[in-house]
Amino acid sequence: MSNLTSRGWALAQRPVGAPKPGDFTLQTEDVASPKDGEIQVSNSWMSVDPYMRGRMYDRESYVPPFQIGELLQGGAIGHVTASGHPDFKVGDLVQSMAGWREVWTARPEAVLASVRPADTGLPDSAFLGIAGMPGLTAYAGILRIAQLKEGDTVLVSGAAGAVGSAVVQIAKIKGCTVIGSAGGAEKVAFVKSLGADACIDYQKADSYEALLEALRVAAPKGIDVYFDNVGGDHFQAAIELARPMARMAICGMISQYNDTEPRPGPSNVIQIVGKQLQIRGFIVSTHADMQNDFMRDMAEWIGSGKLNFQETVMEGIEAAPDAFMGLFSGQNKGKMLVKLS
Amino acid sequence: MSNLTSRGWALAQRPVGAPKPGDFTLQTEDVASPKDGEIQVSNSWMSVDPYMRGRMYDRESYVPPFQIGELLQGGAIGHVTASGHPDFKVGDLVQSMAGWREVWTARPEAVLASVRPADTGLPDSAFLGIAGMPGLTAYAGILRIAQLKEGDTVLVSGAAGAVGSAVVQIAKIKGCTVIGSAGGAEKVAFVKSLGADACIDYQKADSYEALLEALRVAAPKGIDVYFDNVGGDHFQAAIELARPMARMAICGMISQYNDTEPRPGPSNVIQIVGKQLQIRGFIVSTHADMQNDFMRDMAEWIGSGKLNFQETVMEGIEAAPDAFMGLFSGQNKGKMLVKLS
Repeated sequence: MSNLTSRGWALAQRPVGAPKPGDFTLQTEDVASPKDGEIQVSNSWMSVDPYMRGRMYDRESYVPPFQIGELLQGGAIGHVTASGHPDFKVGDLVQSMAGWREVWTARPEAVLASVRPADTGLPDSAFLGIAGMPGLTAYAGILRIAQLKEGDTVLVSGAAGAVGSAVVQIAKIKGCTVIGSAGGAEKVAFVKSLGADACIDYQKADSYEALLEALRVAAPKGIDVYFDNVGGDHFQAAIELARPMARMAICGMISQYNDTEPRPGPSNVIQIVGKQLQIRGFIVSTHADMQNDFMRDMAEWIGSGKLNFQETVMEGIEAAPDAFMGLFSGQNKGKMLVKLS
Repeated sequence: MSNLTSRGWALAQRPVGAPKPGDFTLQTEDVASPKDGEIQVSNSWMSVDPYMRGRMYDRESYVPPFQIGELLQGGAIGHVTASGHPDFKVGDLVQSMAGWREVWTARPEAVLASVRPADTGLPDSAFLGIAGMPGLTAYAGILRIAQLKEGDTVLVSGAAGAVGSAVVQIAKIKGCTVIGSAGGAEKVAFVKSLGADACIDYQKADSYEALLEALRVAAPKGIDVYFDNVGGDHFQAAIELARPMARMAICGMISQYNDTEPRPGPSNVIQIVGKQLQIRGFIVSTHADMQNDFMRDMAEWIGSGKLNFQETVMEGIEAAPDAFMGLFSGQNKGKMLVKLS
């Protein structure tokens, strides 16, 4: 049961613009039995996340770039199938960065993200979404980076996504007015179902001016907080709508990740001065110290029905590139996941 | 001695682009004797500051716009020439927002900024510069907004100006490496004389790429803090050179104040995420609570010779528009002032 093969996705070439199927190659590898200190794990779920696009560029950043011909990495959750490590036994659930593959053998300290917290009652997949990295991203971003206060009017772009949908709900729990932006009627309905006071359909806005007008109608008194997942026109519109002392948590700019050349930035940055705006980018790993508070609050909010989560699931390792590429065309409501076993 | 006339400058029309002489009109007005509760003041110095350009637009902002045909306003310092107020006697030095004119009569609570602190030994004019609004702007911006830490590498644009030259010196006092940017060899020499470790001449950079390269040579390991007085290409270059977790205090964007249409913003805002940048605009009046700390530190630093200040002085009320317009062509080293009496 311990010597077997695993399929996994490697980078075939670095994507130019939007990722396409030929950028990925499915490899089959032998997986060794675990030696002393190692565990063998069969992944049950793997995560695809927008930030992975950044690792496909060959450039220095906060995480090293993926290498061509090597297996991709990302969040995964699975069960121990063989163990040479005294702290792990067969059947243990483990969360790792060894995604994009079916089975792996490694020393746990090299790949494990964190073990499953006990007694949460959440499904395994939640630890890749609402109770995992995207959830903590939302939590740290809106509470610490954007310094959310009761009564704030909050604009969330990418509001139907894994992070955005959590931000919408946390802001509602905290007593704020929440405006979402999402693409398409179905996602707009989803965001409203999460409690958002309004949600615009940015696909209906065929220009920056139309986007700004739609947001202005949704937030006629302006905004105190902006949580950015998309960048581009949304970022500029948020600066325009910002009230004095507004805070912006810049989590991601998915609309720009596939750009092949620099695009002009917001033409209204001069408002940063007069409105005394605070614009902060952040990466979730910097806020790992919030993990305990996060898990405590999530358990309470989910348990009491105040916070819901949705997943968009694709089946089997073969689907992983499609799931990843789907992030950029907005195929997901909530967390995009691949079910492996 | 108390009924007299005063010359003062009104806005003739709202400037389009760079301000020009015809935008201003010199008016002569009668100045009444002070009634009960009023004082009459003869201004000895008036200030011209870049932020005044913003008040010449007819738009909502943190200060109301100047009105056409009405006297302009701004920092001034002068002596009481007649008093109907029990707390003021002839000869008292007062600091007000009743600049751009020679003499005025008003209730002190309507126009006074703050009275002269005792025993500082500074010349009167310093209260419009290093010991006044520009000095507090530098102090609050670099210490509170940019959260300066010993050992930081700090980039200061507009480094020869009233605010920038103070920032350079405060950062050196705090044990930082300081890179300035200024226009022209004379100003570069001035900034270096203040203790800057390097100063580039942005007038020698005929493109964004040339500016970036000059700054990269001056700060080969990147920057931890950026203090922005000019905006435009400097802001974009600062984002490019920023190290992870860099902080930016956005004080002003003088290169953009005369823009007649929106200009594209920095094309590298996506770096805000990965570098976890913090970009904060600010206005000095929000940080009035730092006034006591500021005056205590300034008195010590100036008294001990750690901090120097320079003024560029034009003579007489007639020169006020020239002094103001000169800010935008970089005519000043240190604080630009008009001596009135």
